Amino acid sequence: MFSGAQISLYPMTDDFVGVILGALGALDPYRDKLRIETDDISTLLVGPPEVLFPAMRDLFVAAAASGKHCVLSAAISRGCPGEPDDPICRSDAVGGPVGPLSLRKDAAIAAVREADVTGQPVAVQFSLYVMGTGDHMDEIYGCIDFLKQSGVFDRSKHFCSRLRGDAGAVFSTLNEAFCRFGPGAGHVTLDVTVSANSPTAI
Amino acid sequence: MFSGAQISLYPMTDDFVGVILGALGALDPYRDKLRIETDDISTLLVGPPEVLFPAMRDLFVAAAASGKHCVLSAAISRGCPGEPDDPICRSDAVGGPVGPLSLRKDAAIAAVREADVTGQPVAVQFSLYVMGTGDHMDEIYGCIDFLKQSGVFDRSKHFCSRLRGDAGAVFSTLNEAFCRFGPGAGHVTLDVTVSANSPTAI
Repeated sequence: MFSGAQISLYPMTDDFVGVILGALGALDPYRDKLRIETDDISTLLVGPPEVLFPAMRDLFVAAAASGKHCVLSAAISRGCPGEPDDPICRSDAVGGPVGPLSLRKDAAIAAVREADVTGQPVAVQFSLYVMGTGDHMDEIYGCIDFLKQSGVFDRSKHFCSRLRGDAGAVFSTLNEAFCRFGPGAGHVTLDVTVSANSPTAI
Repeated sequence: MFSGAQISLYPMTDDFVGVILGALGALDPYRDKLRIETDDISTLLVGPPEVLFPAMRDLFVAAAASGKHCVLSAAISRGCPGEPDDPICRSDAVGGPVGPLSLRKDAAIAAVREADVTGQPVAVQFSLYVMGTGDHMDEIYGCIDFLKQSGVFDRSKHFCSRLRGDAGAVFSTLNEAFCRFGPGAGHVTLDVTVSANSPTAI
């Protein structure tokens, strides 16, 4: 199954190029497990979820360590019928049969409890989109129920859910939302915004 | 049908607050036709597509006039079954029966030809997500075919399509993609990134 993300990093500073270049080293441990292509709008990461989410987390934590207001925006996708399969995406995290929603929620909650701690607080909002099925709202409501028990749920907003907490637990929560909801082999996407050091944080 | 967007404006400058505050006046002509709520991550705009897209266009053009590298990120949604209906969203642009794809493409192309010219060049990438149906890829491929005839198509990327051109034609193209593809009363979303003044523009 093809999986990956188009990501962009926005440091709100005159030295945005310096902050971005300074953070890129955080991707080094993941480079042999990802295909990476950059243009002027975004950077493509192709690879399995268990590499994608830690790579995005470490990149963002490195940028946020600049102390500048930074945002990471990501369009994350798996199982798009229009994308070619790619061996680099092979993963046990997705693709299996769909078990009962209650078991998937429990497994997601347990996984977030084991998340690494980074020391970087973040605020996130994201939307989960499940395509190709008539019951997509059941999966979305199931995911929201998981979020409320994740320990990083902030509040619901129109079109999205807000999370806040340590970047470790928050990116783990995004990973679980992406992998455990929607059909295992289905077309699922996330629209994610991650923010740190905002002068108007509430 | 409930429709709206969560939007964020990212000026890559130390004076990002000044650029944002300086651009907000561009929303004034639309304020009585939108519900607007802001927090530290995004601003919610609730209203019909024919107000949403010009409002986002004018806000972005005003910010880009600063000359700073600016990005607008938006999660745009209509017809989410979990959202309450709202009279402010009433529109003839969506909600009707679904006609043949070829007629919808022709109507979309004709609408973009009539778009206002702003004088501000932009680069955009976006994804169209159609939910609640088994044939979502037919609608997505139909939309991509329209994009290729829109006059602002740049190229396909993994997970998204790139556009470039005057902000008027580009935002009109986004409007058409949002309103004419997917069921009229269906759950349809866009994940949009708009960029101007990038030092690495290609």
